Amino acid sequence: MNKQALIDQIRQKKSFLCVGLDTDLQKIPALMLKSDDPIYEFNKAIIDATSPYCVAYKPNLAFYEAAGWKGLQSLDKTLQYLRSLPEPVFVIADAKRGDIGNTSTQYARSFFGDSNPKKRFDAVTVAPYMGEDSVKPFLEFENAWTIVLALTSNKGSDDFQMLDCGGKKLYEKVLETTKQWGSDENMMYVVGATKAEMLADIRRIVPDHFLLIPGVGAQGGSLEAVIRYGMNRDCGLLVNSSRGIIYASKEADFAERAGEEAAKLQQQMAAFL
Amino acid sequence: MNKQALIDQIRQKKSFLCVGLDTDLQKIPALMLKSDDPIYEFNKAIIDATSPYCVAYKPNLAFYEAAGWKGLQSLDKTLQYLRSLPEPVFVIADAKRGDIGNTSTQYARSFFGDSNPKKRFDAVTVAPYMGEDSVKPFLEFENAWTIVLALTSNKGSDDFQMLDCGGKKLYEKVLETTKQWGSDENMMYVVGATKAEMLADIRRIVPDHFLLIPGVGAQGGSLEAVIRYGMNRDCGLLVNSSRGIIYASKEADFAERAGEEAAKLQQQMAAFL
Repeated sequence: MNKQALIDQIRQKKSFLCVGLDTDLQKIPALMLKSDDPIYEFNKAIIDATSPYCVAYKPNLAFYEAAGWKGLQSLDKTLQYLRSLPEPVFVIADAKRGDIGNTSTQYARSFFGDSNPKKRFDAVTVAPYMGEDSVKPFLEFENAWTIVLALTSNKGSDDFQMLDCGGKKLYEKVLETTKQWGSDENMMYVVGATKAEMLADIRRIVPDHFLLIPGVGAQGGSLEAVIRYGMNRDCGLLVNSSRGIIYASKEADFAERAGEEAAKLQQQMAAFL
Repeated sequence: MNKQALIDQIRQKKSFLCVGLDTDLQKIPALMLKSDDPIYEFNKAIIDATSPYCVAYKPNLAFYEAAGWKGLQSLDKTLQYLRSLPEPVFVIADAKRGDIGNTSTQYARSFFGDSNPKKRFDAVTVAPYMGEDSVKPFLEFENAWTIVLALTSNKGSDDFQMLDCGGKKLYEKVLETTKQWGSDENMMYVVGATKAEMLADIRRIVPDHFLLIPGVGAQGGSLEAVIRYGMNRDCGLLVNSSRGIIYASKEADFAERAGEEAAKLQQQMAAFL
């Protein structure tokens, strides 16, 4: 999905919500465990309930890998189900990858390389620590987005991202340097909602890029602050909520309750679009 | 495998060689492609030929993931084969993971969480950008090593790792900060062989930790310089070679040639042990 198509979806659905599919066998309702493929069946129910209210989904690779190769099969099926929806959705592989060039090329191939466009992700999250040749292989694929970690939502983000590197913080250096490797048509940045007050500074460095904002909900970030400091004329935001939506209930009504939580966020977003 | 057992293996085999299993369907000999599971069969042949000369193997996850869930099956089988060898080997999942705490816990579980110790990796490589709570979940597992990226072997390592952060380079800050999160009994560091002249400084910060050194061979690093500047009283080095060994030949003699390349490196290493 290109930038204009994403903006169109945001306007049409009056939502910039991304639903994080952090699907954990230990957290999904016990009744799902009877199914042959509980991860996929849970995702399918969540997708059916939330897709009217969101424009993007973000499967978190860790949760699928923890279930071994069967987990990756469930992920494949989930991606295919997302591609069968009547409205297109933006699908992000939250993988935090990054390695030397020939290895990053392999990672990029696993997310973007399928000859069938319906089996490709739209975007992957990438860690910047290893520099340009670790990020560029992801940018070489057409119709594919690289979402670079800039300022993350967790407590540990202070350890290195906030280090002073000659008058600028490391995350600012990351933004300034990496934005030269691509454009706002194929790069986005991760900025945690828990650091919303820094979004105004970040917007001075990357005024036009979309930002993927985790940390609303379970991690305590404020949607209103994110919008106030982070929104640009294209909206420019994908706000993710994972646990707050998909684990809203552990009972038989889990999908219904997930839909309600997604709808609440969508209504708050609609007021600003 | 704990630190003393690793040192014992190094002394016994007179080797600190790690063979990188970057197994790529596009690079393995065409004759292997007739097999039901070419990735596993290739690995098995390489392991049989090289295991007398090395103490560690490092499957590079990107290459298995690029082959989808079938690639992960091949990886499972490879790990089980490594665990069936008469001499124990140290097995590193080269995955460069790192995410917020609950997600890193999932990644850690997929490498270290199996109830059968023969299905667990000994170590995983981890990216430090997201800080303490992204690394600690890996350190919570017993008999498991976390190998943190410090100074990598690629050109892009200059982009951020070499940034001046108040008189110290970022990679030095990473070493100083992260070494407080664990000990030399459960942490190692990645330092590229292409930066061997910096090993003397690195040894001042982490005198006792093992270092995983990629970049010898295809990437051009010098084994002699690594030994001169990086070796400590326990040896303290695992030197990795991937492409230089496993792709030494593309013909029917690929395993034999891989064994020869591994033996050459082992002989150079033996002279220093």
